[in-house]
Amino acid sequence: MNDFDRDSLKLHEEKHGKLGIVSKVPLRNRDDLSRAYTPGVAAVSKAVAEDPSLLYKYGGKGNMVAVVSDGSAVLGLGNVGAAAAYPVMEGKALLFKEFAGVDAFPLVLDTQDAAEIVDIVCALALGFGGINLEDISAPRCFEIETALKARLKIPVFHDDQHGTAIVLLAGLINALKVVEKDKNVRIVVNGAGAAGLAITRLLHLYGFGNIIVVDSQGAIFQGRSENMNTTKAEIAAHTNSERLSGTLEDVMVGADVFIGVSKAGLVSQGMVRSMADRAIVFAMANPDPEISEADAKDAGAAIVATGRSDSLNQLNNVLVFPGLFRGALDARIEQFTDEMFLAAAEALAGLVLEPSAEKIIPSPFEPGVADAVAGVVG
Amino acid sequence: MNDFDRDSLKLHEEKHGKLGIVSKVPLRNRDDLSRAYTPGVAAVSKAVAEDPSLLYKYGGKGNMVAVVSDGSAVLGLGNVGAAAAYPVMEGKALLFKEFAGVDAFPLVLDTQDAAEIVDIVCALALGFGGINLEDISAPRCFEIETALKARLKIPVFHDDQHGTAIVLLAGLINALKVVEKDKNVRIVVNGAGAAGLAITRLLHLYGFGNIIVVDSQGAIFQGRSENMNTTKAEIAAHTNSERLSGTLEDVMVGADVFIGVSKAGLVSQGMVRSMADRAIVFAMANPDPEISEADAKDAGAAIVATGRSDSLNQLNNVLVFPGLFRGALDARIEQFTDEMFLAAAEALAGLVLEPSAEKIIPSPFEPGVADAVAGVVG
Repeated sequence: MNDFDRDSLKLHEEKHGKLGIVSKVPLRNRDDLSRAYTPGVAAVSKAVAEDPSLLYKYGGKGNMVAVVSDGSAVLGLGNVGAAAAYPVMEGKALLFKEFAGVDAFPLVLDTQDAAEIVDIVCALALGFGGINLEDISAPRCFEIETALKARLKIPVFHDDQHGTAIVLLAGLINALKVVEKDKNVRIVVNGAGAAGLAITRLLHLYGFGNIIVVDSQGAIFQGRSENMNTTKAEIAAHTNSERLSGTLEDVMVGADVFIGVSKAGLVSQGMVRSMADRAIVFAMANPDPEISEADAKDAGAAIVATGRSDSLNQLNNVLVFPGLFRGALDARIEQFTDEMFLAAAEALAGLVLEPSAEKIIPSPFEPGVADAVAGVVG
Repeated sequence: MNDFDRDSLKLHEEKHGKLGIVSKVPLRNRDDLSRAYTPGVAAVSKAVAEDPSLLYKYGGKGNMVAVVSDGSAVLGLGNVGAAAAYPVMEGKALLFKEFAGVDAFPLVLDTQDAAEIVDIVCALALGFGGINLEDISAPRCFEIETALKARLKIPVFHDDQHGTAIVLLAGLINALKVVEKDKNVRIVVNGAGAAGLAITRLLHLYGFGNIIVVDSQGAIFQGRSENMNTTKAEIAAHTNSERLSGTLEDVMVGADVFIGVSKAGLVSQGMVRSMADRAIVFAMANPDPEISEADAKDAGAAIVATGRSDSLNQLNNVLVFPGLFRGALDARIEQFTDEMFLAAAEALAGLVLEPSAEKIIPSPFEPGVADAVAGVVG
């Protein structure tokens, strides 16, 4: 274990976790108690019983998001289970509050049965104004998100899919300005899990026409028989028009953009060198990227980004989900749409007035990030 | 609507509910983010994946209680549904924090199927150090609590049962000192729901031998055929040894103690007058008692208590659940026991050094209440 890991463990141990509950109302004496609790609360309960939507007015529903995971795809660690997902969901909840004033609460579910997860979240949803799904493996995550969106009238967002896709698209918009290339670039997406498929879908919707998605079996093409699922088949219909097969190494030759949402260390310096001139490398595997920022730069990549907080260009979902839910809660939308996602990416990219190789994306600590993203929702 | 109800609605509207989420760790810059979130949180997740009990060390599990309701028996309002239960659960969560430093979160479930509720709570329990069940109707609440206790290794507590029973027993211990009576008193418990049956059970365990429980059909006796359930049958075996039948009015004649956990207005002044000399009236229906404090006093009751915050002797569960969970979390017990409940009642009663008709129970705002209760657990 390195010093940094030790530091992080120490931070989590000091106060036993990171998240606390506070009262927004005074509780100093019997009078306060009479209003916030019994008997006064009965008037509130009666009102809500008649019109449950009053939970937005008299309850925290309009500012409360559930951060839900089953621990089946935690960071880049894999299916390590719901308990291991807890510290990540707790961290996410804090970022909601810190960056957009959204109250969020971590709920880790000790089941990986998709139908059961859907039922549980639906049963719980009453107290929440939105559901942020997190670290749920593909293809179950697609099924769960689709079912929840059909059953609930509060916005449901699988951050690993859409948060990642939005921030990637924002970064790519600016990176292409820097290297002076357009939507005809050849893009290789490595990883066909939740993030890879959502990124590909959003890039396609934005107008990128030359994308090849690679999974552990190599390039995905229409008609491939092995290791496919419904979502991969849909993606194959819109990508890799030449129906190329081959390994990641094969398809990276001559590519303009590499987007990795896969595993640490899958990309060598040689593979970066084989890319087209002024190559863009977004190595997003978390916590350790497909290739380190330093190695990718050293191999000649013009622009490098990772998902790490210690990276120069950090393409982190924290740029997206707080603002997106802020906007969704304020406008009380029933569901997110693709149009909102595309607009959020453009809004985020637009915050960097003069993109450069060192800065394709704003820092999450810059003021106005959440507001800009929130502004596109509604 | 009266001024007080309007005040309470206003309090709930001002900040849209009563509960907020805060960070216990700093989030000022990228370094902080790296430790609390990615990449640093990965070290914590890895550790927890190997040993989920580390959530007590690195997560908030050891101080976090879920306050769970299905809205089937909200206060005295009845089956008004999960949304209507939310403001009550939210209030409860605040009291946990205010009186014992316990973080608690309200979870209202949009299902009243007992087996489903058990499955949902079990699936969610990983992130919590305890489960407080609330406002769930009898006899489902017995089934749900029993099943959860069997499946979970964190303390499960149905507050309407045990919190009420403990505070009632504490009040009764002191009230009997004031009126100079002993365990041979005749006690009438009106209401055979969650609270009534739990109170009767705890009083019996404490050594009271002359109890009659009354439900909407009248006195419950062994062998009665109408409107019974398993729990009522168990209670009947230990109460009403003379197998009296009759109405509440009938059995109150000559009784020393009336305990109401039923409905507003069920007790008349005439019924109080028919009780034995130096009568004790605990009218606990919420928010409006079986008979008002003033009317009961006026009819000659020596000691009157209600569950209301504006009552002189307030027998409110808030005297119990914060401290009991504080103790349970600190000692990390796997389940509560009857012995703990009896000890909690004695500890609570013991805090009033010189009981009087005006003071049979401490105020929740007196320092040391939660500590005294917490001290009996472990």
